Amino acid sequence: MSSLVKVKIYTASEPLVSWIYEGQTVWQAVQKAGVLQRGDCGGRGICGKCKARVEGDVLSLTSEEEEVLSVEEKQGGFRLTCKCHVMGETSVFLPETRIAHLKGGLLMFERYPGVLAAIKKVDTHIPPFNRNNPIPLMERVQWSFKDYELEISSANLNHIAELDQGDGFRINGGLLDKTVLRIHPQGQGRFCGLAVDIGTTWISCALIDLITGELLGETGALNSQIEYGRDILARISYVMDNDTGIEELNEKVVRDISLIVEELLDGLEIGSEDILEMTVVGNPVMLHLFVGLDPRGLGRAPYVGLFRRGISRRAATLGMPMHPAGRVLILPQVAGFLGSDVVACLLAVAGNSLDNFLVLDIGTNGEMVIVKDDMYFACSIAAGSAFEGGGITSGMVARGGAIDRFWLEDGEMKYSVLGIERPEGICGSGLVDLLNVLLDLEVIDETGLIQPDKYAGKWRNTPRGTELIIVDEAESSQGLPLVLNQQDVRQLQLAKGAVRTGIDILMKEAGINPQGIDEVMFAGAFGHYLNPEAVIGIGMIPGFEEHRIKPIGNASLRGALAALVSVREREEAMRLASCITAVDLADHPDFASLFVESMAFK
Amino acid sequence: MSSLVKVKIYTASEPLVSWIYEGQTVWQAVQKAGVLQRGDCGGRGICGKCKARVEGDVLSLTSEEEEVLSVEEKQGGFRLTCKCHVMGETSVFLPETRIAHLKGGLLMFERYPGVLAAIKKVDTHIPPFNRNNPIPLMERVQWSFKDYELEISSANLNHIAELDQGDGFRINGGLLDKTVLRIHPQGQGRFCGLAVDIGTTWISCALIDLITGELLGETGALNSQIEYGRDILARISYVMDNDTGIEELNEKVVRDISLIVEELLDGLEIGSEDILEMTVVGNPVMLHLFVGLDPRGLGRAPYVGLFRRGISRRAATLGMPMHPAGRVLILPQVAGFLGSDVVACLLAVAGNSLDNFLVLDIGTNGEMVIVKDDMYFACSIAAGSAFEGGGITSGMVARGGAIDRFWLEDGEMKYSVLGIERPEGICGSGLVDLLNVLLDLEVIDETGLIQPDKYAGKWRNTPRGTELIIVDEAESSQGLPLVLNQQDVRQLQLAKGAVRTGIDILMKEAGINPQGIDEVMFAGAFGHYLNPEAVIGIGMIPGFEEHRIKPIGNASLRGALAALVSVREREEAMRLASCITAVDLADHPDFASLFVESMAFK
Ligand code: FES
Ligand code: FES
Repeated sequence: MSSLVKVKIYTASEPLVSWIYEGQTVWQAVQKAGVLQRGDCGGRGICGKCKARVEGDVLSLTSEEEEVLSVEEKQGGFRLTCKCHVMGETSVFLPETRIAHLKGGLLMFERYPGVLAAIKKVDTHIPPFNRNNPIPLMERVQWSFKDYELEISSANLNHIAELDQGDGFRINGGLLDKTVLRIHPQGQGRFCGLAVDIGTTWISCALIDLITGELLGETGALNSQIEYGRDILARISYVMDNDTGIEELNEKVVRDISLIVEELLDGLEIGSEDILEMTVVGNPVMLHLFVGLDPRGLGRAPYVGLFRRGISRRAATLGMPMHPAGRVLILPQVAGFLGSDVVACLLAVAGNSLDNFLVLDIGTNGEMVIVKDDMYFACSIAAGSAFEGGGITSGMVARGGAIDRFWLEDGEMKYSVLGIERPEGICGSGLVDLLNVLLDLEVIDETGLIQPDKYAGKWRNTPRGTELIIVDEAESSQGLPLVLNQQDVRQLQLAKGAVRTGIDILMKEAGINPQGIDEVMFAGAFGHYLNPEAVIGIGMIPGFEEHRIKPIGNASLRGALAALVSVREREEAMRLASCITAVDLADHPDFASLFVESMAFK
Repeated sequence: MSSLVKVKIYTASEPLVSWIYEGQTVWQAVQKAGVLQRGDCGGRGICGKCKARVEGDVLSLTSEEEEVLSVEEKQGGFRLTCKCHVMGETSVFLPETRIAHLKGGLLMFERYPGVLAAIKKVDTHIPPFNRNNPIPLMERVQWSFKDYELEISSANLNHIAELDQGDGFRINGGLLDKTVLRIHPQGQGRFCGLAVDIGTTWISCALIDLITGELLGETGALNSQIEYGRDILARISYVMDNDTGIEELNEKVVRDISLIVEELLDGLEIGSEDILEMTVVGNPVMLHLFVGLDPRGLGRAPYVGLFRRGISRRAATLGMPMHPAGRVLILPQVAGFLGSDVVACLLAVAGNSLDNFLVLDIGTNGEMVIVKDDMYFACSIAAGSAFEGGGITSGMVARGGAIDRFWLEDGEMKYSVLGIERPEGICGSGLVDLLNVLLDLEVIDETGLIQPDKYAGKWRNTPRGTELIIVDEAESSQGLPLVLNQQDVRQLQLAKGAVRTGIDILMKEAGINPQGIDEVMFAGAFGHYLNPEAVIGIGMIPGFEEHRIKPIGNASLRGALAALVSVREREEAMRLASCITAVDLADHPDFASLFVESMAFK
């Protein structure tokens, strides 16, 4: 494994630090810090949008850069960040970018290539107003779109009426099926879509231009249902115990999405009425609560909710911040706790030319799929929220301020922090790294017991037992020490055991062994920041070869985007949902013994 | 003209008084007081729903009553109020009715006979939940309605889910086009529609069962846009002067309708989501503001707004308190200030077998139509709000507390009050009666000048000139005297002159004279309470024979209801809108001279 190097990112507001592997690009460092940087060509060195001044230990100009950059730019130290490889400490200056996305940045694409959206743009001409035979504007608009129904808002028509001063003019209509939802003067405005991934802990959204495929923004926020319980069973319990539980939880997620959309639209010349279609993915409980349906059936055998297929609803029915007659499409679910997020995840990695692969999405309610020769075996795992920082003394989700990596340098423990200088807590990948380092040092033994005498670091005694102080209070951003104690280790053992048991049982069902798996794809924030060596080291996954382990970013959201932008992908999502074999772990005869075994470290 | 008799109405709350003509029924007295009384058969003496105990000077039992009433009921003094004719002072006891409708009661029907609604009821069966092959409820519902799309709310499905305990069950769906909007267990719930008439001053709504045609309620409220100006030109001015004017005025009417619907639903087992379709009528400015469209084009030549045809919109788009995917249908307008209210009014009186008739709707913005051998000539008149009490010192709209009639008894002025004992003000019909009485007494001369020396009533001098005190402060409900002064008379002269000019010009255009007109129909509150003799007496209308003058109640709302309940009537509305010839009074060469002439009293 190559070593980590530090990239300092100077933005208009605060300087950021990003740790990347030697040989990775400046662009990757910027992405990792969660900064939204332009790059229309997706890092192919063509568009020139990602250029920035770079100083430090980097490889020399590539042929693409020679081509795209001007003489003055080259003299001024400008580089295409996507083509500029970092070998040692480096600084990059991005004075005009905003730090939008410590909360996003895992989407890994900037423009969707094969747009085939359900929303179409229609180009037409509005005839002029004639005082001698005055026809009201709406009738002329209807005439111009004569094959279609109109569902344009009054504000929209009032705005167009301002232009209606005698001459005719050209106009674009945003079309859904046979209905025009929105009109803009030709060349102005956009017809947009929103993809939403509702996780138990985190909600991610991406805004896209449905005509050009251009990604306009991506961000996310904590799912504020968290105050009603960390995992889906806790949410179901709340509904069981409270008459208005469904409404309360529904309001939370509707409000969360509204706030995220507000943030996405901020600074863009796009209004919520320009969002004409929305795709939504999530686990079945999140989807039930999103539409306000009773999820209690999912909390008891035979674990059947009120809906399983995809749903199409009018935006207004769901209170979504978009065109009221726009469409909200919930992608199809599988069964039990396997929702449309799994389907979207597979959609995002489809067409990868691999025969056999494993996809892991390790969140509070995690899912995994083994694809073997076009057969799909999936299960959900109750890993708990440990890998999203839940229930861990110094845990936190993977956003600015989280320690995402630990390593040893000359016997001393080092760490890197996402986005900002001082750590606030430790996210999932940091916790896995930490466990792995402590196992190397034998501070944690095979059974998971902490052995303070094995390490000369700082320890303290508390009512919860002996704690290892990982970051001093003076170094942390909140003035509190970051620690690890025996309970934390136990939580992590349970979580990694659940993941490993899932993988083992899925492999059995698929009739495949680790050697037969071509690639292991880790979705989500956890996968993005993780250290493959550590994940194998703690036994969370079997001994796959490290180079086969790949982060795939927010694949669920990417799949939701694919279905948003392409009707062909929607069909593929339906096909996938019906092809997936749901494997029920708890019912499996080997579950108990595998689970107990997999909790140990060996 | 027969004389007025007093009917006392004892309700659960306050006692009411109603003045009717000798020979009218108790039911008419109850209606006139604005009390909502049941009567499913519409006063034909069949249903028995209108029965109540009656005491006083009434005709004896009719054969219908002999048939419908039980022996005990007859002994107890019960009558079918619709068949019980009043000859002198009478009391009726309605302990269980509520006084819903001092604000309504002008609809004049209880059940629509020829239901042919766009909303259909579908009856089907939901198969049982099978634990061995568990299919989510929504999928089974979709299967049961397999030819249709579903737009049922989550709350609706959650409610049905409570019944889904093993056995299958029968269910009714409320269908709009190819979409099921609402489901109810068989035999429960209703699928409803709302008809709305948005007047410049008053908004009326009626709630109806779209399957049975049963009228479920009717009420109204002041249009709170009034605070932005009394008439449509004032509203347009407000929009011109204020950037957010459209939004403000739109919010007012949306809120007004929401409050009216809340009142209508109160006490019924019907939720706003049971309202699946809505028809709306009004003048063009009111309709523009209802949908939030810029009405400014209606305020300047060539007086063209942004739309003129009918519009169909999703309820959610307009913020209407009904099923969000329900439909709001604005009936087609004519031109200029002639809106869908005129069309609805004609729709309501269509099929009356008359060849030639005149329909008058005298509100703040009034309209009139002459129908001659299937040709339609219509005009709008800016009568001002005098006949709705606007700008008149002691004026008020026709609701509880308004004096609706004046007459002389032994040279002394008498009056009747709507609904309650003490008068609060004088409504349009009262003002016309008052003028007529004062003309008889020669207190007002031909030119409209007040001659105090002609009448020994009470007079007082004020900065506004000499005022006739009509009701002492001790007798009025607010402790203020009700008065009439010279400015009031001038306002009324302008208003009646405008009406008369409209009639005269329309008759010219239609090539008809008063003798050729078979019937004069007065729509609205003004028409309901007016005294034909007085209207002719003050010269507001030509000398039609009195018995040809008929009140037709809230004909616009009735027409909106007809279009709501029958798709055939919708087609008829479209036909009518396109057949009507709009006559522009102000452009007419005779306008000025006719207007000046018609203001005089002679
Ligand atoms: S992203 Fe296009 S040049 Fe770097
Ligand atoms: S209304 Fe039916 S009997 Fe009177």
